[in-house]
Amino acid sequence: MGEASKGAATRDAVLDAAVEVAGRIGLSALTIGMLATETGMSKSGLFAHFGSKENLQLQTLARARDEFVDMVVRPALRAPRGEARVRALFEHWLVAGDQDGAPCLFASAPVEYDDQSGMVRDQVIQDHTDFADVVQQVFRTALSTGEFRADADETQFYQDLHGIMLAYFHARRLMRDPQAEARTRRAFERLLADVRANGVV
Amino acid sequence: MGEASKGAATRDAVLDAAVEVAGRIGLSALTIGMLATETGMSKSGLFAHFGSKENLQLQTLARARDEFVDMVVRPALRAPRGEARVRALFEHWLVAGDQDGAPCLFASAPVEYDDQSGMVRDQVIQDHTDFADVVQQVFRTALSTGEFRADADETQFYQDLHGIMLAYFHARRLMRDPQAEARTRRAFERLLADVRANGVV
Repeated sequence: MGEASKGAATRDAVLDAAVEVAGRIGLSALTIGMLATETGMSKSGLFAHFGSKENLQLQTLARARDEFVDMVVRPALRAPRGEARVRALFEHWLVAGDQDGAPCLFASAPVEYDDQSGMVRDQVIQDHTDFADVVQQVFRTALSTGEFRADADETQFYQDLHGIMLAYFHARRLMRDPQAEARTRRAFERLLADVRANGVV
Repeated sequence: MGEASKGAATRDAVLDAAVEVAGRIGLSALTIGMLATETGMSKSGLFAHFGSKENLQLQTLARARDEFVDMVVRPALRAPRGEARVRALFEHWLVAGDQDGAPCLFASAPVEYDDQSGMVRDQVIQDHTDFADVVQQVFRTALSTGEFRADADETQFYQDLHGIMLAYFHARRLMRDPQAEARTRRAFERLLADVRANGVV
C-alpha cells in the first residue's frame, strides 16, 4: 500500500470512528481533542488531517450522509419505478432507522442544529433538502406509472412519510417499543391508500 | 423577601438559564462550568445549588417538562372532552413547537438520549411515557363522547400524531418552510377523519 492509499485508509478509519462518536454524543460535541481520546490517535495527527473542529464536523456529517445514501437511497433506486420504488425506499429507511452510527447521526443532526447557526447547520439543511428531493422524485415515478393520483401532493407526501419515520425512530430507539414497527407499517399503508389512484387500501 | 424565597427565586432564574442553554447546545453538553460561563454566576455557587452535572441536567429536564405541561397539557385539559380536547392539544402543541427553550428541549432530549444510558435517559423515557399517556387519555375522551370509532387504536393515534408533530418541528425549525404548518394541519385533519365514528372529513 502506497503512502497515499495508507493515508486514505487512515482517514476512512478515523471518519468511521468520528461518525460513531458523534452518533453517541452529538455532532456539535465532537472535537479533535475528544476524537483523539476516543481513537487513541495523536491530537496533532488529527489536527493535521482536519485542520479545525468545524471541518471535522463537516467531514463527519458528509460520511454519515454518504452511508445513509448507500443504505437507503441507492437500493431504493434499484427497485422498479412506481409504488414498488416507494415501498423499497420505506423498507430501507426502516432498516436504517434501527441502526447506530451514520443513519442515527443523519436523523439526529437536524434536531441538534435547529437552533444553531454556521456552516454545519447549513450543510445539514442542504443534505435534508437533497433527501427530500429524492423522496419526492421517487414519489413522482408512481405518478408517471399512474399508480398514484395525479393530484396527490409530493411535498405533503414527503412531510407525512418523514413524520412516520421520525415517530418510528422515537418509539424504537428511545422507548424500545416492540409494537413500533407494526404501527409504522400501518401508518405507511394508510398514507399509500390516501395517494393511490384507485383508493384501494 | 426572606432568605428561603430569595434562594428559590435564584434557583428559578438559574434553571431558566439552564433550559435556554441546554435547548441550544443539548442537554448532555450542559455542565456546571458551562452554566457558570453563560450566567456569570460563580461555579462554586452553582455547585452548591446542584451538587453534580447529572443533577443539574435532571433539574433542567424537569423544568423543561413542567413548562411543556403548562403550555400544552394544562390548556388542552381545560377544553371540553372529546374531539374539541384533541384539537386543543394539537393547537397548543403546534404553538409550543415554534418556540425555543423548554418545548424545544422537551422535543430534542429523546433524540439526544436514544443512544445513551443513565439517569437522564431514564427520566426522558419516563417523561415521554407520561406525555404519551396524556395524549391517549385525551383521545379516549373522544371515544366516550362517541365522536371517535370504538375500534380506533389509541396507541396508533399517539404514534401517528407524534410523527405529524416531529415532521412539523423539522420543517419549521430547521428548514424554515413557510408551508410546514398548512401541511401539518392537513395531516392532522386526515388523522382525525380516519378515527372519526362517521368517517366524514
